[in-house]
Amino acid sequence: MSNDIIKSILKNYESDNNQTIQCLNKILMTGKLAGTGKLIILPVDQGFEHGPDRSFSINPDAYDPHYHFQLAIDAGMSAFAAPLGMIETGVDTFKNKIPLILKCNSANSLAKFNDQAVTGSVKDALRLKCSAVGFTIYPGSEKIYDMIEEARDLFEEAKNAGLATVLWSYPRGNISKQGETAINIVAYAAHMAALCGAHIIKVKLPSDFLEEDPTKKSYIDNKIVINNLADRVKHIVKCCFNGRRIVVFSGGEAKNDSELMTEIEAIKKGGGFGSIIGRNSFQRPKDKALKLLNNVIDIYKRK
Amino acid sequence: MSNDIIKSILKNYESDNNQTIQCLNKILMTGKLAGTGKLIILPVDQGFEHGPDRSFSINPDAYDPHYHFQLAIDAGMSAFAAPLGMIETGVDTFKNKIPLILKCNSANSLAKFNDQAVTGSVKDALRLKCSAVGFTIYPGSEKIYDMIEEARDLFEEAKNAGLATVLWSYPRGNISKQGETAINIVAYAAHMAALCGAHIIKVKLPSDFLEEDPTKKSYIDNKIVINNLADRVKHIVKCCFNGRRIVVFSGGEAKNDSELMTEIEAIKKGGGFGSIIGRNSFQRPKDKALKLLNNVIDIYKRK
Amino acid sequence: MSNDIIKSILKNYESDNNQTIQCLNKILMTGKLAGTGKLIILPVDQGFEHGPDRSFSINPDAYDPHYHFQLAIDAGMSAFAAPLGMIETGVDTFKNKIPLILKCNSANSLAKFNDQAVTGSVKDALRLKCSAVGFTIYPGSEKIYDMIEEARDLFEEAKNAGLATVLWSYPRGNISKQGETAINIVAYAAHMAALCGAHIIKVKLPSDFLEEDPTKKSYIDNKIVINNLADRVKHIVKCCFNGRRIVVFSGGEAKNDSELMTEIEAIKKGGGFGSIIGRNSFQRPKDKALKLLNNVIDIYKRK
Amino acid sequence: MSNDIIKSILKNYESDNNQTIQCLNKILMTGKLAGTGKLIILPVDQGFEHGPDRSFSINPDAYDPHYHFQLAIDAGMSAFAAPLGMIETGVDTFKNKIPLILKCNSANSLAKFNDQAVTGSVKDALRLKCSAVGFTIYPGSEKIYDMIEEARDLFEEAKNAGLATVLWSYPRGNISKQGETAINIVAYAAHMAALCGAHIIKVKLPSDFLEEDPTKKSYIDNKIVINNLADRVKHIVKCCFNGRRIVVFSGGEAKNDSELMTEIEAIKKGGGFGSIIGRNSFQRPKDKALKLLNNVIDIYKRK
Amino acid sequence: MSNDIIKSILKNYESDNNQTIQCLNKILMTGKLAGTGKLIILPVDQGFEHGPDRSFSINPDAYDPHYHFQLAIDAGMSAFAAPLGMIETGVDTFKNKIPLILKCNSANSLAKFNDQAVTGSVKDALRLKCSAVGFTIYPGSEKIYDMIEEARDLFEEAKNAGLATVLWSYPRGNISKQGETAINIVAYAAHMAALCGAHIIKVKLPSDFLEEDPTKKSYIDNKIVINNLADRVKHIVKCCFNGRRIVVFSGGEAKNDSELMTEIEAIKKGGGFGSIIGRNSFQRPKDKALKLLNNVIDIYKRK
Repeated sequence: MSNDIIKSILKNYESDNNQTIQCLNKILMTGKLAGTGKLIILPVDQGFEHGPDRSFSINPDAYDPHYHFQLAIDAGMSAFAAPLGMIETGVDTFKNKIPLILKCNSANSLAKFNDQAVTGSVKDALRLKCSAVGFTIYPGSEKIYDMIEEARDLFEEAKNAGLATVLWSYPRGNISKQGETAINIVAYAAHMAALCGAHIIKVKLPSDFLEEDPTKKSYIDNKIVINNLADRVKHIVKCCFNGRRIVVFSGGEAKNDSELMTEIEAIKKGGGFGSIIGRNSFQRPKDKALKLLNNVIDIYKRK
Repeated sequence: MSNDIIKSILKNYESDNNQTIQCLNKILMTGKLAGTGKLIILPVDQGFEHGPDRSFSINPDAYDPHYHFQLAIDAGMSAFAAPLGMIETGVDTFKNKIPLILKCNSANSLAKFNDQAVTGSVKDALRLKCSAVGFTIYPGSEKIYDMIEEARDLFEEAKNAGLATVLWSYPRGNISKQGETAINIVAYAAHMAALCGAHIIKVKLPSDFLEEDPTKKSYIDNKIVINNLADRVKHIVKCCFNGRRIVVFSGGEAKNDSELMTEIEAIKKGGGFGSIIGRNSFQRPKDKALKLLNNVIDIYKRK
Repeated sequence: MSNDIIKSILKNYESDNNQTIQCLNKILMTGKLAGTGKLIILPVDQGFEHGPDRSFSINPDAYDPHYHFQLAIDAGMSAFAAPLGMIETGVDTFKNKIPLILKCNSANSLAKFNDQAVTGSVKDALRLKCSAVGFTIYPGSEKIYDMIEEARDLFEEAKNAGLATVLWSYPRGNISKQGETAINIVAYAAHMAALCGAHIIKVKLPSDFLEEDPTKKSYIDNKIVINNLADRVKHIVKCCFNGRRIVVFSGGEAKNDSELMTEIEAIKKGGGFGSIIGRNSFQRPKDKALKLLNNVIDIYKRK
Repeated sequence: MSNDIIKSILKNYESDNNQTIQCLNKILMTGKLAGTGKLIILPVDQGFEHGPDRSFSINPDAYDPHYHFQLAIDAGMSAFAAPLGMIETGVDTFKNKIPLILKCNSANSLAKFNDQAVTGSVKDALRLKCSAVGFTIYPGSEKIYDMIEEARDLFEEAKNAGLATVLWSYPRGNISKQGETAINIVAYAAHMAALCGAHIIKVKLPSDFLEEDPTKKSYIDNKIVINNLADRVKHIVKCCFNGRRIVVFSGGEAKNDSELMTEIEAIKKGGGFGSIIGRNSFQRPKDKALKLLNNVIDIYKRK
Repeated sequence: MSNDIIKSILKNYESDNNQTIQCLNKILMTGKLAGTGKLIILPVDQGFEHGPDRSFSINPDAYDPHYHFQLAIDAGMSAFAAPLGMIETGVDTFKNKIPLILKCNSANSLAKFNDQAVTGSVKDALRLKCSAVGFTIYPGSEKIYDMIEEARDLFEEAKNAGLATVLWSYPRGNISKQGETAINIVAYAAHMAALCGAHIIKVKLPSDFLEEDPTKKSYIDNKIVINNLADRVKHIVKCCFNGRRIVVFSGGEAKNDSELMTEIEAIKKGGGFGSIIGRNSFQRPKDKALKLLNNVIDIYKRK
């Protein structure tokens, strides 16, 4: 049911009950990366965040929620994350076929402020047989303290109910556009997520830019190595309790596949735990998506 | 009690308990459209939204709530939706004669902001033997996240209590007047409603206008067909989880009957599930209303 | 315990439990108007709204809460409505002598905004053996949605606990001073109160002024008759679910007795259910108040 | 355990349960004024409101909370009122020696707005064996409705738990500085406290100033006598339900002892129920405080 | 299990239940200062407040939460305080080795306002076998009343659950930068924390500056001695209920070790109960930290 790699990851979660550990184990023992200690999650909240057409019209099959369940299964991914309504459509058809993560808050591009609406609950997650709840916080926004408190409430209830928790930590607000992916800001956002008690942390891949901020000086004074992406990934892992918490990365705006592979190599090399790949998965025909995801998986599986 | 058409619609609701499915079934198996997979709802919250006189003085019988219950029954409609006080007047007289939808929030035109007041609860709906609760959200308004969270709370409780849920999704706020019915905005609003977990989604019929918005580009790049109304209806159905969720349409401001019939034809042709017809039902003498509604029903029943 | 007139009023309350119906019955079967289907309520929240001295110094006996209990009893009124502290002073002395309405929110003139503070609860009303809870909403104010939601919570709990509910609906805010009693605005306010599920609705007597508002046009287009007060009362009754809900009227600023009698005649003629008479009751010596109230009652009793 | 004077006061509290009546009785039957129907309360929330040094450095023994418990006991006062932390220090040492009032909200002078923080609860009061909870409202402030609602929640729970309730009613905000102690404003504030359901009302001694306010006219028109302090006290007693509620007075800024005695004489003469004496008690050496308080008590005891 | 010194401290907590007293006893009977009545706490919320890199890059071992648990144990400290996520990583490995304080709220430097986010609860603290909950308030900030109310809720629940409570009281907001550590402001902040019912109070070491504030005059008029640090510590102890509450001090920005020792000497001399030493503990190599902490402990242990 598990192996030594997975056991060594799970023993870092010293405070969790058996069911929560089993949920994490299930994610780590599912799909083509099962047992490797690496994971790939398919997130489909783009329809909420950007609207259905910007998300799916390039690959119209993707308007159907079942497409995504099946894609995640066929690609051998570790888990499928989506908002309430989308998860509800497939809980019977895809029962026990892939771990589900209920994304419990979402923004939408018609709303012009740095916040999200809560759209799911632990009770929903249990009803839908999910393995985890997911939540987003925006460090730097004027709503950050409210968002952290919502995450706290959700996570306390989730841990008590035996679920795992995933925290998307996306800086914005009192931060320059370039600073949103600056290494010093992403490191802070990742550490904050760890302190909030998330089991799995999700951040964007950091650039080598240093936001003008009181934290910048430490990078220079203490010579933190951030030259190449693998080093930056390594630094983020360090900021997630020195590797005691699972951290996965997204690339953000879709780019060409070769660049994506280079990023995956860097995540692997830097000791990152894996990827969360949305648009690059579902914004192309399924056969091409499966091929791409297979290549990603191959990199993560390579010894 | 049901048939294959209805069963194939209901099996899309994979996560719901038996009672909720029975409520949806009841709506789909009531009235002249019973068993066709189409539905017409009579909504009477105009008295709240526009005041009693703007709503009823043109047809003074309509000041009496019982008029509307009876109209919905006589016309062979699928359900009657109204706010708390109106439903309370008729629960005994019209017991078991038509499925009731408790509209749980309402705006009024004396208030000058894009929000609504919560006026009903799941407890009320159960007390009044309703089949569903209804709620309105305003995508684009500054209150959208609060409204979504209110809908979420209501819907979680409703599903747990075995009720169906109906979400009115009306864009306004950060949107041009014309944009409120633009196809790219209505598509987004409908998809958002689906993601919020609504069983039945209610939107306005979209125009072929494209609001200036990041979603517009997708329509052009990916050649989404929106030339005629049937195509637009078809697109909205696609945005409601590729037809896995029931979506019904209103026409908004009353127009002439011939235009209305053209709209109904388009909804039918585009694969829409039906209509919600308020002002066109009760703002004319009852005999004329029955005649009009009969014509609408005939279109929906036609093979 | 009841009669046909009262039974025909009470059967309009189709959704209420037995205890609530008994509370309404008790109000309709108390005092000199018992069994007539008419009612007069004594409200004493003026001390909260305008201060004790502006309310009582003209008739200093009125500083004592027991004065008001006794006045309502001696005058043969149907119920006594007051805020928490005042009701608390007399529950033992006046036990079973007159139905009590706990006024659960109040404004005060030291506060300069269109809202009220909640000062009583259903639990309080039960502890104090009240027959009903009362609440005020201000249609047109920026707090209207919050006030409606507070009323909703209170009324749900009250109905469940077997109490009746009374809603004071007083337009103000986004409305001209003259518009606060305009027929189109008062009609809207009364209908809104009915939709909120109130058993008894309380509005000010409307003038024949029409506020500039989208509702005005209907009056002209559909020739709603508002020339004399009796017609306006009749229209308000129509807007309260065509007479299915009890609506009572206040006159506002005290005027001379002859004008008051003319108003009562009009309420009677227009089919209104009665009056709520505060300042005209307690801002004169008791003997004069009793005489006035007797005259009012005589009008209402006249066949 | 009681006597006729006390019984006649307590019978005004018609709605309270036995335990609450026993709490009021205990306060009225404690100390040197036991059984006289008069009371003196020692309040020590000055450390919160003005800081420890402004409150205690003039008499450094007063930095120790036990000093105040002992002072209240030694002086033969009726009750000791203080915030949570201070009460917690002495509940065992001073068990059963003096009735305790848990002051449940407090302001502090580092905060620049007219509100207070809630710092204690009914649960705390029960745990600390208190006889009453105390709360402050600021009539005229922009937070007044929130404060009233907080008081309401607290008092409902307190009455249910068998505690007495004390309401400090201090006008400020939409009021001139002089108006804060104007007779028309203090009368309003006292009446509001009574309507909120307080058992004991605490206001500042009113001046003969009349704030420019709609209530002013009543004083002139109806010739309310406010020339001397005893008349004003009498008027405040009248505004507290014509003497059906206990009202006590503070003098505010410490003045010379002779003026203080004149004030006490006026409270006595006007029919006030007693005093709440903070700074004049603890901002002098204990022997001098005891002497002063003895003089105050002598006035109140005098037939 | 205890001794006379500790018993004499604990008997000041007159209102607490046995389990809470045992939690305080455990802190006072742990580490090298066990039984001395002095204590040193290691707080590690710097990663939240300033980011991981500004906190840990100077001593990279400190990125690992276990480093801090072990440091606190090896140095013989009295307790380890940290936010949720950090405590969660070590509850099994370090079970029973050092008392844990769950820091239940935290700020972060990406947020530009004087408030903190709640990140932990009493339920969390119990699950993690903590001895106490910690909370921060900002006297002088515009959020102070909300923060006090959050602390109140937390502390009521904590005391009921048998936990101890620690309140960080840090003035900021309506205060000059220099005033944040002014003796008159820190004294006020410490007293406020005591009134809020904290068992252990944490303030910054005060300077001899007097903020321009109504409290300043008392220092001059009543000749409060504040010339040297020991006198100021003594004054703070006096403001914490005359020594009835444990108060510990931090130094703030790291300075040289010799200055730090001088401060510790002053705390000892002034009767302070100990220190909370974060950055000076973990922002240097472990061997140097142990040496420094040993020196601090030696001072506190010296008779």
